[in-house]
Amino acid sequence: MTKPDPAELPATLYGVRWEGGLEDGHLVLLDQTRLPKDLVYLQVRDIEILRKAICDLAVRGAPAIGIAGAYGIVIHLVPLAKTATGKTAESLEQAHAHAHERLVSSRPTAVNLRWALERMRDCFQRHSDHLTPLEMCARLLMEAKRIHREDLELCRRIAENGAALLPISGGIYTHCNTGALATGGVGTALGCLVEAHNRGKKIQVFSGETRPLLQGARLTALELQHAKVPVTLCCDSAAASLMARGKIQAVIVGADRICANGDTANKIGTYSVAVLAKFHGIPFYVAAPYSTFDLALADGSLIHIEERHADEVRRSQGVQLAPHDVPVANPAFDVTPAALITAIVTERGVIEHPTRERIATLMAGGASEPAV
Amino acid sequence: MTKPDPAELPATLYGVRWEGGLEDGHLVLLDQTRLPKDLVYLQVRDIEILRKAICDLAVRGAPAIGIAGAYGIVIHLVPLAKTATGKTAESLEQAHAHAHERLVSSRPTAVNLRWALERMRDCFQRHSDHLTPLEMCARLLMEAKRIHREDLELCRRIAENGAALLPISGGIYTHCNTGALATGGVGTALGCLVEAHNRGKKIQVFSGETRPLLQGARLTALELQHAKVPVTLCCDSAAASLMARGKIQAVIVGADRICANGDTANKIGTYSVAVLAKFHGIPFYVAAPYSTFDLALADGSLIHIEERHADEVRRSQGVQLAPHDVPVANPAFDVTPAALITAIVTERGVIEHPTRERIATLMAGGASEPAV
Repeated sequence: MTKPDPAELPATLYGVRWEGGLEDGHLVLLDQTRLPKDLVYLQVRDIEILRKAICDLAVRGAPAIGIAGAYGIVIHLVPLAKTATGKTAESLEQAHAHAHERLVSSRPTAVNLRWALERMRDCFQRHSDHLTPLEMCARLLMEAKRIHREDLELCRRIAENGAALLPISGGIYTHCNTGALATGGVGTALGCLVEAHNRGKKIQVFSGETRPLLQGARLTALELQHAKVPVTLCCDSAAASLMARGKIQAVIVGADRICANGDTANKIGTYSVAVLAKFHGIPFYVAAPYSTFDLALADGSLIHIEERHADEVRRSQGVQLAPHDVPVANPAFDVTPAALITAIVTERGVIEHPTRERIATLMAGGASEPAV
Repeated sequence: MTKPDPAELPATLYGVRWEGGLEDGHLVLLDQTRLPKDLVYLQVRDIEILRKAICDLAVRGAPAIGIAGAYGIVIHLVPLAKTATGKTAESLEQAHAHAHERLVSSRPTAVNLRWALERMRDCFQRHSDHLTPLEMCARLLMEAKRIHREDLELCRRIAENGAALLPISGGIYTHCNTGALATGGVGTALGCLVEAHNRGKKIQVFSGETRPLLQGARLTALELQHAKVPVTLCCDSAAASLMARGKIQAVIVGADRICANGDTANKIGTYSVAVLAKFHGIPFYVAAPYSTFDLALADGSLIHIEERHADEVRRSQGVQLAPHDVPVANPAFDVTPAALITAIVTERGVIEHPTRERIATLMAGGASEPAV
């Protein structure tokens, strides 16, 4: 177990970081499956272990997975580079392609992961004819750290844009975890909540527990407590009742993937909250970075919904909750149509009532890498 | 532990029954908090133990609680009656009043419990001037058994009425547990599903797990498996996604309490499913006996929503799921407005698009005790 260094970090808790230098360094992940009880950091030096951590949700949150994936390329190549001879192109190309494939396939829905790995591949291809293998690894680590730093900066901008949108007081419902543990910075939706609180808005956050893996209960509640933001936990199925009784003035959630028309894939249950918010006339905000948009997907009908293991629902923390052999529907994500989204908050600005045209305008308006 | 006697019972699993005669008899409850893992029957001879069983949800489901409450009056009075002298009115009246109060206050929202206890009180008052204490107990046991038998019969009628309404094939979503474990018979909403299946309808039931106490996972899935009805378990928050993907053709749930205008209180999450069904154009049925109606309540705004203990959400089966001190909103029930209900299925018939007038008509149409 490693203790985080508060001086270096934007929040008390972090999900992903690089520790050490190039040749002696490694990736550190907080094992989020063991929260809130145990604070265990995994020292990751092998992409198969990283792949398992992504599959098991030990590391989670679209941006954090992207950052972890970028560092994953480095941990796979450094040991080879130390003994490699010849040009990078000859000695590392196959290993890089292997690491890329193993990591990109660990979570097919995570567009940030693909985006980060493609940046790493671009970097590799740009420099493979003029750098030695170890120089290449140094360049790749620099690229991974840049991806990480950019995320920190864009979280800050999203938090500022989102905090301005939230009401000056009242109950704000959120689902799943979109905080520092899910990103490289202060988080997306959760960053907005923390920033609103820090600006003096009198908000009371309601965190849906987010079955089956309880990210809302285990992570969001914990992070908001750390940040001193008033938080109340509830079962996912209580959201409607809270809305009907006037306790919720806005909803803000993150996104795993946003289509060209604004349809948004996010943790199972997000669409449910969006329908309920619409029914009760409550604004529904999505906070997500630029890299979450996938303009190649015209709309949500094209998103493949990953079906996860039945035992996530039948068992919890090792305890049997249901007949051991009952069939289970366990979609990992659902798709919220753009029509239910009041606004999408990005680091570049806010897209009110998102449409294909408004998204295209924002996407065209800047470089893919915000200035750091 | 007692094994159920299949020959005597309407289903393999039962929630409540009387065992033995008058003087040596007692109430038997299946401890539903220990399902699906352990099948433990509680031998109940003391109303404080019964009260605790009701509070802890060891016995649950509005009809089953009513039946258990009725037998509870008997177990409290028999030991006193054995040694009592004089008229019943003098020797047992205070004890009866005490038992009534202790039981009625164990679950203030459960109108069936109040209704059953009031029937027991009416019986007591009708006969207290001409029966000896032991004769009175025998009469009260007869009344409790009649309440139980009536429930069995009305479950059969509700099941028939509900099965006729359900589509000939497709997915049917249900929430919480409304089966044999919750009633004295085959159940209400779940009875309709079993009857539809037995009539050859090709239904696929989706059972929401029903956080926080997981009655859908622990009980409904188990009962449907026993009844050989195809069942798939899902997280409560997946209902919306299943509806959007065309997998649900109808919803059927039970009720804890129905107001004069049709507003319906039921397990937390029911209202959520009702809103989602409305949004997706899916019929939403409530199956409940006559005794669930509380015509003294004009509408749902008058229903007191019981707030249950925070640890039901923060912990599950002894495992910590959230920070141990995080505040929790844990409403036991929510209220579904009549406007979201396609039809209420009762033992007396079906009330389509329930209104105050239609409910009053049905309520006025028959005696309070169906013929057995």
